[in-house]
Amino acid sequence: MAEFAIDYSDVQCARARIRRHGVEPTPVHRWSAFEERSGIRDLQVYVKCENLTAIGAFKIRGALNAVMSLTESEARCGVATHSSGNHGTAVAYAARTRGIPATVVVPAGASPQKMDLIRHYGAELVMCEPTQEGREEALAGLVREQGRVPIHPYDHPAVMAGQGTVADEFLDCVPDLDWLFVPIGGGGLISGTAVTVRTRRPQMRLVGVEPEGANDTQRSLEAGVRTKHPAPNTLADGLRAFVGALTFPVIQKWVDQVLTVTEEEIRNGVRWGFEELRLVTEPSAATVLAALAKTPVPDGARVGLILTGGNVDPDLWAGLRKGANPGFLGAPPSARWPVQRAER
Amino acid sequence: MAEFAIDYSDVQCARARIRRHGVEPTPVHRWSAFEERSGIRDLQVYVKCENLTAIGAFKIRGALNAVMSLTESEARCGVATHSSGNHGTAVAYAARTRGIPATVVVPAGASPQKMDLIRHYGAELVMCEPTQEGREEALAGLVREQGRVPIHPYDHPAVMAGQGTVADEFLDCVPDLDWLFVPIGGGGLISGTAVTVRTRRPQMRLVGVEPEGANDTQRSLEAGVRTKHPAPNTLADGLRAFVGALTFPVIQKWVDQVLTVTEEEIRNGVRWGFEELRLVTEPSAATVLAALAKTPVPDGARVGLILTGGNVDPDLWAGLRKGANPGFLGAPPSARWPVQRAER
Repeated sequence: MAEFAIDYSDVQCARARIRRHGVEPTPVHRWSAFEERSGIRDLQVYVKCENLTAIGAFKIRGALNAVMSLTESEARCGVATHSSGNHGTAVAYAARTRGIPATVVVPAGASPQKMDLIRHYGAELVMCEPTQEGREEALAGLVREQGRVPIHPYDHPAVMAGQGTVADEFLDCVPDLDWLFVPIGGGGLISGTAVTVRTRRPQMRLVGVEPEGANDTQRSLEAGVRTKHPAPNTLADGLRAFVGALTFPVIQKWVDQVLTVTEEEIRNGVRWGFEELRLVTEPSAATVLAALAKTPVPDGARVGLILTGGNVDPDLWAGLRKGANPGFLGAPPSARWPVQRAER
Repeated sequence: MAEFAIDYSDVQCARARIRRHGVEPTPVHRWSAFEERSGIRDLQVYVKCENLTAIGAFKIRGALNAVMSLTESEARCGVATHSSGNHGTAVAYAARTRGIPATVVVPAGASPQKMDLIRHYGAELVMCEPTQEGREEALAGLVREQGRVPIHPYDHPAVMAGQGTVADEFLDCVPDLDWLFVPIGGGGLISGTAVTVRTRRPQMRLVGVEPEGANDTQRSLEAGVRTKHPAPNTLADGLRAFVGALTFPVIQKWVDQVLTVTEEEIRNGVRWGFEELRLVTEPSAATVLAALAKTPVPDGARVGLILTGGNVDPDLWAGLRKGANPGFLGAPPSARWPVQRAER
């Protein structure tokens, strides 16, 4: 597998490394309500609860693997990233675990709650203009002036390998999965997953899921070359990133299918997460619940879903669930997501 | 231990029985956010996720154990209970598992969502007046006329033994728990728990938790005899029941302490469940989160919490979390909880 940035042995090393530093396997939960209401006979649906990691998202795995893989001299320089979401928290957490400084570039307008969480883990915050250029410039400045080591959220071999540990744990619990649904943002999770399942369970059907409003991977697969969505816009804020240069070739080769889901379907997924799984499910994670619901899987199928995270502002979430917060759901995209839209 | 309705061997039998019929051990999750913000050094907090059973509550254990313990000739008569909550769902589920009929007496005004769930599991619904007398009369009628076997929600040895399996699983995962916090409604869960921990981990501190507005167990312990709360009223709808004749003596002997929590504290607990545990936490379950937050546990303590369930009407819940639904939180108690208040 030298054709790609990582192979399965990298995932195995990552798994041992993050376990050593406190990341316990997350539970696997049955979506029995869906099994019953689907009408599909003998369906088994297993949900890998990445919302139950210490930071509430799978991102802890890649960031911790990357930070723990640094040499001593690299580590002394500290790490940096730009993020307004789970990856920023994950890098802060990982740096604290290693006992090194971290700086997270946060675009103006990011949620105070998320900034508090990043600060809680001891990282320094640097505010920047809420544009992709502003973020990259601020990060480049930290690298140049303070010697910080940048930790890319997905296009980074140690991050991809770390994210691959989700599927590795999942297959320990449910070795005979027939289908696996995985959200695609920048492709870190699904590329690590693909490397793992193609070694351990090659015949499994691997399905990537994107929001219709941020389907750059689907476009890229059709075009045969990485192709941006012209104006990404979705509630699933973790999935707006542009598929990576390292992750895309893995997806091209090993992902069987990329499905898209609508915003309405994502909202349904959030609701099912609440009512049927009793798990707090962020919109990015709800995409896989929505995708399964529209996929005609055969009788007797054993289906896995990676529920990627449960970090969502509670007040926004209350509105999201009830459809009762027009400021959140009804405002024009430019007002809603100025920061994240600039991300690609 | 013949002094009580059950002993530890009953719990062991119950555990084997419910496992055989599909109840897998629920996960144990760390409340790391609280460990960090508590200021208590080396605190470890383990949460037993009973919201992740098939019906979203621990009640499945006792009901399934009771229904599976019936003789063939009893089972042929079918079972019945009265409930507007998780026990009704649990009995319906258990009867379906055994393949026998079930009838659930539901007071007028019960939530349509809960009635749907009971119907989903194939039980027949019988509506009654929303008073304790109406419920008991309707149930007695079913027993008399149809020969149905009544399954009491807590004052029933097989139910108590089934609920004791939660602690039994918990101690397999975390054998050296120092403290355990358990909600008290009718006392089925805490009595089964007490029987289990006094055998397996006798030195552990067992803390019962009641809402201030339904502290009949605390009153009963003070009086030395079962004593009702004059007008039980709390968001924690699962905890309004009156402590049982079989469960109370176990509590008297083996529970170290009964704490109460206010409605405000319960609401905080629901919020922490959402934001810090990423679990849907019904108010009755949130009581233990609230209780830990006000208890000065020592440095290094290993604390267990039984998070009893995650069934809560999503729209009520959204209002509960935001404090933005005066119809739910601000109405006079008589308007809010006419049905449940009549329960005892």
